[in-house]
Amino acid sequence: MPRSLVVMAAALALAGAAPAPTPQQIVDRAPAAAWADVPAEDLVTITLRDGGQVVLQLAPAFAPVHVANIRAFIRAGWFDGGAIVRVQDNYVVQWAAAEGKPLPPGANPTPPAEYEGAAGGAPFRPLGYRDAYAAQTGHVAGWPVASDGRARWLVHCYGMVGVGRDNPPDTGNGAELYAVIGHAPRHLDRNIALVGRVLDGMERMAALPRGGGALGFYEKASERTPIVSTRIAADLPAAARPAWQVLDTNSAAFAQWVGARANRGDGFFVRAAGALDVCNAIPPARRKG
Amino acid sequence: MPRSLVVMAAALALAGAAPAPTPQQIVDRAPAAAWADVPAEDLVTITLRDGGQVVLQLAPAFAPVHVANIRAFIRAGWFDGGAIVRVQDNYVVQWAAAEGKPLPPGANPTPPAEYEGAAGGAPFRPLGYRDAYAAQTGHVAGWPVASDGRARWLVHCYGMVGVGRDNPPDTGNGAELYAVIGHAPRHLDRNIALVGRVLDGMERMAALPRGGGALGFYEKASERTPIVSTRIAADLPAAARPAWQVLDTNSAAFAQWVGARANRGDGFFVRAAGALDVCNAIPPARRKG
Repeated sequence: MPRSLVVMAAALALAGAAPAPTPQQIVDRAPAAAWADVPAEDLVTITLRDGGQVVLQLAPAFAPVHVANIRAFIRAGWFDGGAIVRVQDNYVVQWAAAEGKPLPPGANPTPPAEYEGAAGGAPFRPLGYRDAYAAQTGHVAGWPVASDGRARWLVHCYGMVGVGRDNPPDTGNGAELYAVIGHAPRHLDRNIALVGRVLDGMERMAALPRGGGALGFYEKASERTPIVSTRIAADLPAAARPAWQVLDTNSAAFAQWVGARANRGDGFFVRAAGALDVCNAIPPARRKG
Repeated sequence: MPRSLVVMAAALALAGAAPAPTPQQIVDRAPAAAWADVPAEDLVTITLRDGGQVVLQLAPAFAPVHVANIRAFIRAGWFDGGAIVRVQDNYVVQWAAAEGKPLPPGANPTPPAEYEGAAGGAPFRPLGYRDAYAAQTGHVAGWPVASDGRARWLVHCYGMVGVGRDNPPDTGNGAELYAVIGHAPRHLDRNIALVGRVLDGMERMAALPRGGGALGFYEKASERTPIVSTRIAADLPAAARPAWQVLDTNSAAFAQWVGARANRGDGFFVRAAGALDVCNAIPPARRKG
């Protein structure tokens, strides 16, 4: 297994080969201009009682009404005192406000079904490889998307964040959110509004104990991971404000990264896939500065 | 989110609809003849110091030399006193023997590269849906496979178990194993010998804390989850022997399950995918009796 990556550079140096850069090397060497700042209005911090912090990036270009709602919820302190209430293995982690809390004024209780998002006029960068579910996949403004040639939509990859809902015509309002923690449940695409992704802290969310109840809900309140607070980064004092960047999916560095992900050339691989699933092509993100 | 599944049956009853069976209902109603016993020689128990137990199913038809080796390792007590040494988020959990332990006699230190497996003459059941990586995917004798029309190979789906190795020509020998805990890293297909899957206990393996070192290796021995013992089920006394069954991938019930997974028809979905990734079609397994 890729323990070898550690010794790869040394091995290739000994062999005298000129190695193709690895995906990670391409990311590390990408010029500053290839990184796009995430607006502070799109960054959400989730502070957990256990001391952990999770950072989300919202996707207002794809689900504007839901994202506006989520910002309103957060600014009203909606999730403060809430908890992670559900962890279903190979599926989702889900969090909610304290039970019985009334919806804050200003929140839209019934937003439209934003299951497909135009993302304004942002250009679509085709991934260039076949997909199991959609006619085409690719990226728009830093986001993994699928397309049928007419509409585009965010896809349910590991780490993507969506809006819990009950049965139609209920489309969810953002009062309860989930993040994908397993193999991409792509059958959920266009059935739920996706509103963002986890930029930081997935390794914490995905390692939470699985719930023993139906659908992975915890059966006892004591099993839940309490949420101290959620905040929009723009509302935090400068010193406490996280700053993140995502690799510009229209940059040359991103194109090179995609190519290297599809055709691994380091000493470990005996056969390059020559293919890439869009959910194995989630745009790299980094803390700024 | 699918909290709705809980109320779905009631909602449909109220609406007077005759609902198509859900994937789970198809599994629950499958006749006894649709279930294939897993041979006790192919079942491995991993008993963890924390009290947990994991059950693996080996795939001797695909990687016979590696599986023979793994059985020899287990019977020599190789993993007893070992530990889970690596947990890399959205990638793999890996376990190994105690450091410095000499290979037991009888183990083949350099098995061949069993990256493609014919699985004897077992019939190939095409999944019937497009794949992002291979010309074709489907199932052979209860296993998820891909094919290029000539060869067949096991695929790196969530829960599949493979053999850790360093760089070629080292192909690994089974002394160190890993299980996939994230989105399918299909670029590893045909680069590593896959030898089985986790039948039980994935929710425990996947919830282990991620390692802070390179590639998710734990930096301190104290972070590791110790392995008390691993055993082949056939060697255990009858009372302690796990018994498992996998849904026969050539059965009518399996075909119905695949169709229902690709075309969700319950009250939650507003749009069926009409597609299915092979890694979202891991054959259901159940404890026998």
